Amino acid sequence: MMRIHNFNAGPAAMPLSVLERAQSELLDLGGFGMSVMEMSHRSKEFQAIIDAAEKGIRRLMGVSDEYAVLFLQGGASLQFAMLPLNLRRPGKSADYVDTGSWASKAIKEAKITGNTNIAWSGKAENYSRVPKPNELKLLPEAEYLHICTNETIGGIRWMQFPETDAPLIADMSSEILSRPVDVNKFALIYAGAQKNLGPSGLAIVIIRKDLVERAPETVPIFLRYSTHMADGSMYNTPNTWGIYMVKLTCEWIESLGGVAAIQKINEKKAGMLYEVIDSSGFWHSPVEKDSRSIMNIVWRLQNEALEEQFLAQAKHMGFVGLKGHRSVGGIRASIYNAVPLESVDALASFMKDFERKQG
Amino acid sequence: MMRIHNFNAGPAAMPLSVLERAQSELLDLGGFGMSVMEMSHRSKEFQAIIDAAEKGIRRLMGVSDEYAVLFLQGGASLQFAMLPLNLRRPGKSADYVDTGSWASKAIKEAKITGNTNIAWSGKAENYSRVPKPNELKLLPEAEYLHICTNETIGGIRWMQFPETDAPLIADMSSEILSRPVDVNKFALIYAGAQKNLGPSGLAIVIIRKDLVERAPETVPIFLRYSTHMADGSMYNTPNTWGIYMVKLTCEWIESLGGVAAIQKINEKKAGMLYEVIDSSGFWHSPVEKDSRSIMNIVWRLQNEALEEQFLAQAKHMGFVGLKGHRSVGGIRASIYNAVPLESVDALASFMKDFERKQG
Repeated sequence: MMRIHNFNAGPAAMPLSVLERAQSELLDLGGFGMSVMEMSHRSKEFQAIIDAAEKGIRRLMGVSDEYAVLFLQGGASLQFAMLPLNLRRPGKSADYVDTGSWASKAIKEAKITGNTNIAWSGKAENYSRVPKPNELKLLPEAEYLHICTNETIGGIRWMQFPETDAPLIADMSSEILSRPVDVNKFALIYAGAQKNLGPSGLAIVIIRKDLVERAPETVPIFLRYSTHMADGSMYNTPNTWGIYMVKLTCEWIESLGGVAAIQKINEKKAGMLYEVIDSSGFWHSPVEKDSRSIMNIVWRLQNEALEEQFLAQAKHMGFVGLKGHRSVGGIRASIYNAVPLESVDALASFMKDFERKQG
Repeated sequence: MMRIHNFNAGPAAMPLSVLERAQSELLDLGGFGMSVMEMSHRSKEFQAIIDAAEKGIRRLMGVSDEYAVLFLQGGASLQFAMLPLNLRRPGKSADYVDTGSWASKAIKEAKITGNTNIAWSGKAENYSRVPKPNELKLLPEAEYLHICTNETIGGIRWMQFPETDAPLIADMSSEILSRPVDVNKFALIYAGAQKNLGPSGLAIVIIRKDLVERAPETVPIFLRYSTHMADGSMYNTPNTWGIYMVKLTCEWIESLGGVAAIQKINEKKAGMLYEVIDSSGFWHSPVEKDSRSIMNIVWRLQNEALEEQFLAQAKHMGFVGLKGHRSVGGIRASIYNAVPLESVDALASFMKDFERKQG
């Protein structure tokens, strides 16, 4: 069996041991004579799986009982719509920080249904950094402040999170479980699963329980957080396969020592690439050092022709997913939790070789 | 490896050959060195998969180019909310037929956002049949007529569909691909995948393309059909694993000879159970003969104590999922496409044995 060096931005690499476990149980999970996909979501067998997935998230992230952990569908994109419908009461406003593609998508959706204040935008600087605390122009009466803690496309992240009076809401899709985060600083954290948690088709929402009552009764039942919280994410049939994979992924992270341990590995991996990028004028990072992501490493070469040559050779060598997003170009290596150190090491070596041959 | 007799109502039995194929490809799909779950949804490899899934649905159901086939998330329950938001313009009304649990859930959601006319309700008759054409009280100006063609819980189905001037919209979650249907009679058909199509976490929407423009601009972008149609179901990351499983399931149905062929098998399977149910006063069906589902067979025994005894023995014998829905009680065997004839045969034999021993 051949396994490639997978630097996809999402859906992305998954831990080999998780895939092997899923493969071994695909026809018969736990001796029940059926696949997890064939189990009733109302069965006690599946209830044990979703409970374990929730406990895994709670343990790894230190989520207290003040918060509900929900397994929803529609990815982060449905959250872009649900958030303002549920948490920005009619006539009120919400603050959004525009740090790149994903924050912009959240803003675009929020504007459809109400007042949306752009508290800061990095657009004029090509989204090369996150703002300093004193740059945010917050509304005193904002219902919440929304940030995207790691921008997958721009490769920037919030090293520290803003201190605000308004509830803080964070899209952590591309960095959840990659570093310790104090959940208590947030009113709501959400993440599409397909980067660090499991397969696509699933979103995790961690919401402070008192907030679910904000939604007006004009919001469709399915789009209310209260609906899904009341039924333990089983108002409707959830993505059972996805939840099972999240459970396995949490177990895998725990086996490595938890989030603090995986952060060390992630920093080592990111460091290996940034070291090459910073080692000479051959490469350059468009991102300010204080804002550099450790999940999505983006860089450029001197010109596009050279970038294309690099990408073509990389592909030939078995490195997948290195092409920068079509909206920004350049090179991007997404090195989520599941990307092995060996793949990053191989990529760093390949980069050095490529530079040497060009020299 | 042990495989049980699986009569779950959904998530439900899947074809063994489909599961085996998915298992064999789980770590490396097509020699690309990664799982389908690790592939970028923007890659040409995944594009080929979603194209094949769409073509499979189109071929099996005879869907013309006038319709778009969408792969969405949120199951049928999100459709309950999206339908009226997209297709019932502000101030206008829509007709709904209340044939049971699922139609009721669609109605409850439709009422949140606008005028909802109950054109007929079977509630007073315990949802034991679908209406006759002349019983429907349709509004002349209704934006659409909504029906649930097969009620999973009540075990009833529309043998023939109503002829209407208003666009006809159908929830076919629990019977899609089980019998030939003339798609051209419908404006929109939708189905959660977890019964006849694949795993949970995915919904198929077949929509006449001209209808997508009805949605007002106040509808969130993610909740508009136009959004998903314009981007070929890739406005956001779709449930890639689910789509892959739908592709395999369509190939499996084609290998059996298509929907007409599988209908024959389904009718044979349903006939085996109804024959036992009708053979003596020991069992009885609460459903009128003209309305009987061939996917969800519900029946009762003389009293609840006997039903419990039957369920306990059945469970002991390796039959799973036979307990009627908690809202109605009794017995239910869901015998979707993937439930083998052998499982139904074994159940029919067990029923006869049980009756004999009680006699």
